[in-house]
Amino acid sequence: MEIKVLHQVMDWNEDVSEEVKETLSAHHICMINVMGSPGAGKTSLITSLIDKLRKHWRVGVIEGDIAGQVDAEHIAGLGIPTVQLNTDGACHIEAMSIQHILPELPLDDLDVIFVENIGNLVCPAEFRIGESLRITILSIPEGDDKVEKYPLMFTDTNCLVLNKYDMMPHFDFDEARVCANYETVNPGAPLFRVSSRTGEGIQELADLIGEHIRKAQS
Amino acid sequence: MEIKVLHQVMDWNEDVSEEVKETLSAHHICMINVMGSPGAGKTSLITSLIDKLRKHWRVGVIEGDIAGQVDAEHIAGLGIPTVQLNTDGACHIEAMSIQHILPELPLDDLDVIFVENIGNLVCPAEFRIGESLRITILSIPEGDDKVEKYPLMFTDTNCLVLNKYDMMPHFDFDEARVCANYETVNPGAPLFRVSSRTGEGIQELADLIGEHIRKAQS
Repeated sequence: MEIKVLHQVMDWNEDVSEEVKETLSAHHICMINVMGSPGAGKTSLITSLIDKLRKHWRVGVIEGDIAGQVDAEHIAGLGIPTVQLNTDGACHIEAMSIQHILPELPLDDLDVIFVENIGNLVCPAEFRIGESLRITILSIPEGDDKVEKYPLMFTDTNCLVLNKYDMMPHFDFDEARVCANYETVNPGAPLFRVSSRTGEGIQELADLIGEHIRKAQS
Repeated sequence: MEIKVLHQVMDWNEDVSEEVKETLSAHHICMINVMGSPGAGKTSLITSLIDKLRKHWRVGVIEGDIAGQVDAEHIAGLGIPTVQLNTDGACHIEAMSIQHILPELPLDDLDVIFVENIGNLVCPAEFRIGESLRITILSIPEGDDKVEKYPLMFTDTNCLVLNKYDMMPHFDFDEARVCANYETVNPGAPLFRVSSRTGEGIQELADLIGEHIRKAQS
């Protein structure tokens, strides 16, 4: 019974996801779904990317959290149009929530919207939200076995960010293992070595996002 | 509609959780639900605790994973009765799965069972599985804002483990913030500073578990 209902919700979510995509397409906006574990560094990465991207593009943010709004306050403090989406206990963002919340952003004045999903390496991957790009973050302290253990998050994404890469000397992280497993489940998909603290890899990732923004505008 | 079904599943889960509790009680077994983010160090912590506890008690393990069995192989390699529970995509363990899997363990020859839940700081907290003790792990690299962002996991637990505590010098982790927020949502609940790598805090946590095992046996 549970599985049956799940399918119903999923089908409905897919429909709404397509509607969101049409809305964004009409405004030539590229929406990016940023996913990863709690503490993988989603907010810091988005902040670092905003710093690069805002020179060329108009950026907006939807901050997903189960509760609270500390991250939204941080991003809004940078002068970026930001909306807080509280899921009130739900472990992922669904397309319907994005559809509801999009009109709160100045869509005519944006080129790219980051959606920071709930910190969760499982459920967010199952729900499309109308995004044109998915970024999965895996931080070095989380360990090198995550691709095997949480396969969907690494299969159903457009790029993988190895975050907190400056922490490599302090952890036993077998990068070759991650790369091999990622290549197996998601052949040819790009991988970035990034540190928001040192700035390593941020420009390369911003360049990839720039390509997607240009695609959304053409 | 989604919410309605969720309640049905939750009620049903609570009933089965009570049945599991009765089965364990009949065998004088203490079951421990170990929860935390992906990469928080659940397996390493359980391994370190087994090392202390096996001197006095007979330990079994249920290894929860979405896919794979690397952790179960590791624990079984220590000579500990271990069963792998694959959720095939589900982001948490439910009581029904534990009820199904318990007969696979030698219940007459065990004093304590660790259940390693799926790496997820959200959903596992919503589902009782018949445990008599819940341990929530927060690792230092995850950051000091997690109690505010994922409140249920810290409210609905019996003790909090600050894991990878040896990593404190490498991260900006405001321990006072975590302690204050934890005390607010879960007044008087114990907190342990632990490192599986250095062994710090493991004995103290093992002592708490020993108390619960003795309680289950009396």
